[in-house]
Amino acid sequence: MGTAVRSVSAPDAVEDPRELRCLPRARLGGVCDALRDDLIALGARRGGHFAGSLGTVELTVGLHWVFDTPRDRIVWDVGHQAYGHKALTGRRQQLDRVKCADGPSGFLRRAESEFDVFGAGHAGTSISAALGIVEAQRRSGDAARTVAVIGDGASTAGMAFEALNHAGELAADLRVVLNDNGMSIAPSVGGLRRTGEFRKYFESLGFSYIGPVDGHALDELIPALETLRDASGPTVLHTRTHKGYGFAPAAADPYGWHATSPFDRATGARKSGSNSGPPSWTEAFADALGRVADRDPRVVAITAAMPDGTGLDRFARRHPGRVYDVGIAEQHAVTFAAGLATEGLRPVCAIYSTFLQRAFDQIVHDVALQGLPVSFALDRAGLVGADGPTHHGVLDLGYLRIIPGLVVAAPRDENQLQHMLATAVGSDRPFALRFPRGAALGVGLDPEPKPIPIGHAEMLCDGSDVALFALGKTVSSALAAAEKLAQRGVSARVVDARFVKPLDRDALESAARHCGRIVTLEDHMLAGGFGSAVLEALAASPLHPRVLAMGLDDGFVEHGDVDQQWLDARIDAESIAQRTLAWLESC
Amino acid sequence: MGTAVRSVSAPDAVEDPRELRCLPRARLGGVCDALRDDLIALGARRGGHFAGSLGTVELTVGLHWVFDTPRDRIVWDVGHQAYGHKALTGRRQQLDRVKCADGPSGFLRRAESEFDVFGAGHAGTSISAALGIVEAQRRSGDAARTVAVIGDGASTAGMAFEALNHAGELAADLRVVLNDNGMSIAPSVGGLRRTGEFRKYFESLGFSYIGPVDGHALDELIPALETLRDASGPTVLHTRTHKGYGFAPAAADPYGWHATSPFDRATGARKSGSNSGPPSWTEAFADALGRVADRDPRVVAITAAMPDGTGLDRFARRHPGRVYDVGIAEQHAVTFAAGLATEGLRPVCAIYSTFLQRAFDQIVHDVALQGLPVSFALDRAGLVGADGPTHHGVLDLGYLRIIPGLVVAAPRDENQLQHMLATAVGSDRPFALRFPRGAALGVGLDPEPKPIPIGHAEMLCDGSDVALFALGKTVSSALAAAEKLAQRGVSARVVDARFVKPLDRDALESAARHCGRIVTLEDHMLAGGFGSAVLEALAASPLHPRVLAMGLDDGFVEHGDVDQQWLDARIDAESIAQRTLAWLESC
Repeated sequence: MGTAVRSVSAPDAVEDPRELRCLPRARLGGVCDALRDDLIALGARRGGHFAGSLGTVELTVGLHWVFDTPRDRIVWDVGHQAYGHKALTGRRQQLDRVKCADGPSGFLRRAESEFDVFGAGHAGTSISAALGIVEAQRRSGDAARTVAVIGDGASTAGMAFEALNHAGELAADLRVVLNDNGMSIAPSVGGLRRTGEFRKYFESLGFSYIGPVDGHALDELIPALETLRDASGPTVLHTRTHKGYGFAPAAADPYGWHATSPFDRATGARKSGSNSGPPSWTEAFADALGRVADRDPRVVAITAAMPDGTGLDRFARRHPGRVYDVGIAEQHAVTFAAGLATEGLRPVCAIYSTFLQRAFDQIVHDVALQGLPVSFALDRAGLVGADGPTHHGVLDLGYLRIIPGLVVAAPRDENQLQHMLATAVGSDRPFALRFPRGAALGVGLDPEPKPIPIGHAEMLCDGSDVALFALGKTVSSALAAAEKLAQRGVSARVVDARFVKPLDRDALESAARHCGRIVTLEDHMLAGGFGSAVLEALAASPLHPRVLAMGLDDGFVEHGDVDQQWLDARIDAESIAQRTLAWLESC
Repeated sequence: MGTAVRSVSAPDAVEDPRELRCLPRARLGGVCDALRDDLIALGARRGGHFAGSLGTVELTVGLHWVFDTPRDRIVWDVGHQAYGHKALTGRRQQLDRVKCADGPSGFLRRAESEFDVFGAGHAGTSISAALGIVEAQRRSGDAARTVAVIGDGASTAGMAFEALNHAGELAADLRVVLNDNGMSIAPSVGGLRRTGEFRKYFESLGFSYIGPVDGHALDELIPALETLRDASGPTVLHTRTHKGYGFAPAAADPYGWHATSPFDRATGARKSGSNSGPPSWTEAFADALGRVADRDPRVVAITAAMPDGTGLDRFARRHPGRVYDVGIAEQHAVTFAAGLATEGLRPVCAIYSTFLQRAFDQIVHDVALQGLPVSFALDRAGLVGADGPTHHGVLDLGYLRIIPGLVVAAPRDENQLQHMLATAVGSDRPFALRFPRGAALGVGLDPEPKPIPIGHAEMLCDGSDVALFALGKTVSSALAAAEKLAQRGVSARVVDARFVKPLDRDALESAARHCGRIVTLEDHMLAGGFGSAVLEALAASPLHPRVLAMGLDDGFVEHGDVDQQWLDARIDAESIAQRTLAWLESC
């Protein structure tokens, strides 16, 4: 890296806030222009999260000019909008490798820069973190200032409210910038968005309110930031910004340009690859849910501010009026679904694996304990590649399978996905199914989604030396590994477990009896995961078979290429074959 | 049951809302008096959650008189305040056995009554559930009305905000009664509480606001409820009530009378047993934390609206100014702690095991991923007895041990508790420790809390036939079981594992080598728990020992006596001995 040709080399590009603060106010417009130009060039070359950062150029420059960073702490929320902050704080060149294994994270990250005072990735955390910092500073007599920068989308998260309410209680010198662009990834939702009564809202919680100001007009923004800097007590500055500002195609369609593939700057035309491959898992889910909903009028779907990412916008085109976007509010999403279910509906919560962590208690307390028929579709399960450790979905089998009565499943392909969705909705039980990010397998679909027996595994090929028990995305690796093993004289049975809970004990006993040794495969933490469930199930087996669990060791997996992450975790087909072979020889 | 002598048999006692609605408005005062009298008599006889329900007598009677229950749905929050609702809906007699295995739950419960339209226990869920019901009714054309009744304390939960905001978006015919008594269990906190600007708050989210009205004055309350009944769109009725109203001692000290032991009605004197036994785990924790904080000025403590239940009020008397009560806001509590930790403090989040479920994502994303030194003290871990399935802490080992880098420990007695707390605070790592509800063991305390080596188990007695690996409260059962086994000719090693993560693999290998067979003991779900971790650790052991895991089978454990719950789970000393014996004979 470092050799990338930069299409623009603006004379006003600044890469250190200390340099920035040496510039007179009159130069800031030029700095903003250069920074925005840089970000557009970066997006055109690389793609990635795009429109958010374009909308915060003036805010980023203004914050670093008005506040004494890094002594004054800026706590960004989420991170999609912080590329300008990265460029301005010494990471301009590195952004060409953003989200690559050898480049910076796509989100905020303490280890990356002293200017990233608190990591981010999930939405709505910044005010809590900033309030903790403010309180610690008060205790130590540190006179530095702390500013949380939160979008109106992120502020629909309940924990943002909790933090505001606590700040009001403490009457702390907490500064908040509300970056109000009317968008989460999709357009923002919520009563507060509808009324627009932000002043009332913040004042009711004990905040002083400044604004709203035009977040792209430095003449308005800089004085407002100076007022914020000099304020005491909980204070919010409400800035209105436009996501995608300064690049006409993105400004006209900020939802479509939240993230982008590389594009032509002059025309805005996307340079996307040919689209002849298999559908994404997300598309496959949306279509499968559509087919299930065709047949079952009780089905409604719920997203927490991700209609695009979950495919529910696609579903909504087929079934208008049957999707709820509740905002970045996973807790409410789940209990709202439970309420719907008490009245006979069959809600499907489509929430990324990593974000459903927010609703763990609600799944336990409001859904499972009451045995309500709510289904959970966890997209982005397993390793997600470029988004990195904040976004991997590698804990879900662990936190879900401990919940009494919940069915936990994972389809190996999009045809099984549609059948599992039909199973979930038809089961009258709480039911979770997970599937990965990226392209599905491109298999043909049966004409109709039909329920499959819950808790039944499926043997895909028989063998006598070892049994590979796989799940979801690892099933194809297991099949490929079995071929490799066959070439090396080892006969492997391959079983698609399909269900982690309830587990198919008969299939396990059969494997113990006929193969003797069992390998489990999962794109999930080994602790508490699928292999762990198999060990539990077999502990009492009179056959007492040997089990080798393959999956992720304890630790967070960094951002990078997802195939490389699989190689590193040694759950690719070749690694599985080699490890299985070595294991069979050793025991 | 059913034979209890009732001290008062009021002529106006009503046990069915349909009867209630046949009464003229003028009779409601008498009904309220009779109901309140009943509740006081019940409290005097039985103890239990007390002051909350006294404060909602008029509201309960008013709701059932104005609304057509159960066709109109009343969704209560939490349940501490719903004893009057239970009495009025056919459960008056049964309340004498409330929280007993053969009596009603202390909370709302769908299985218990058609009037309990949504279960409760954890705070802040009612608006989400009610909104789901409203939406389902709208879809089906059901003209019934739905009312969520939420306390001002419960409305500090982020999910309550999420639900209000979504209701404002939908402009749904959702009715909310804000039962504002200024209290959670302790006095309510929050900026909204401080400003008192409830109208502004609700209106900013798109609600119509009615009130405030005196929730004990039927002349104000009934017309207001009728207005609420006839409203359309999201509407909130703000009622001011007094927790403990109508019983002078409780009204004067509602915090102290939130829950009570049996008492003398005439004097208010509590009939508590002698207090000469060992301290509670909670007291032991508070004192241990006090000693640790004596030596380490970086220690601060955080509670989510439970200063009494967690012992932090006791800690605060020793260390004023070092406790934060953030409200019912576990998510914020954890990320706030993470913010404190970035600035060098050593925050300890004291949160019940079951309530920490709310902050699972924040522990992962904001604490563990950043490796921040936040400690979690999980009170009420394991089976909690009378509070039942909403309150057991039997998932914590499962959801915590899958988090990379987190230390997970459980002390067997209060002396080990103080050493583990010192270990946690001194470790510079994220660290969770769990301990049960009820009395500690009464052991002597070492003069100073001192760190113990992380990940090291402790052998308490050696043996050669089997090794019992226990944890926390099960350690004493294991020791007693070992004695019983010795009497039956079996030599059992007893190991206090102390840490579930990292697990002491050497201790396990040693047991495998010397004893051959291993029994694991836990007051936790078997799925994903301590035994599961042991199975994972031993899967690769060349010795391939047999393991029998004892703990809780899949399923929710009903409310009742905690000792009976242990007997039912067969994790008491005698059951452990018998099951171990049978197992050793069988394999």
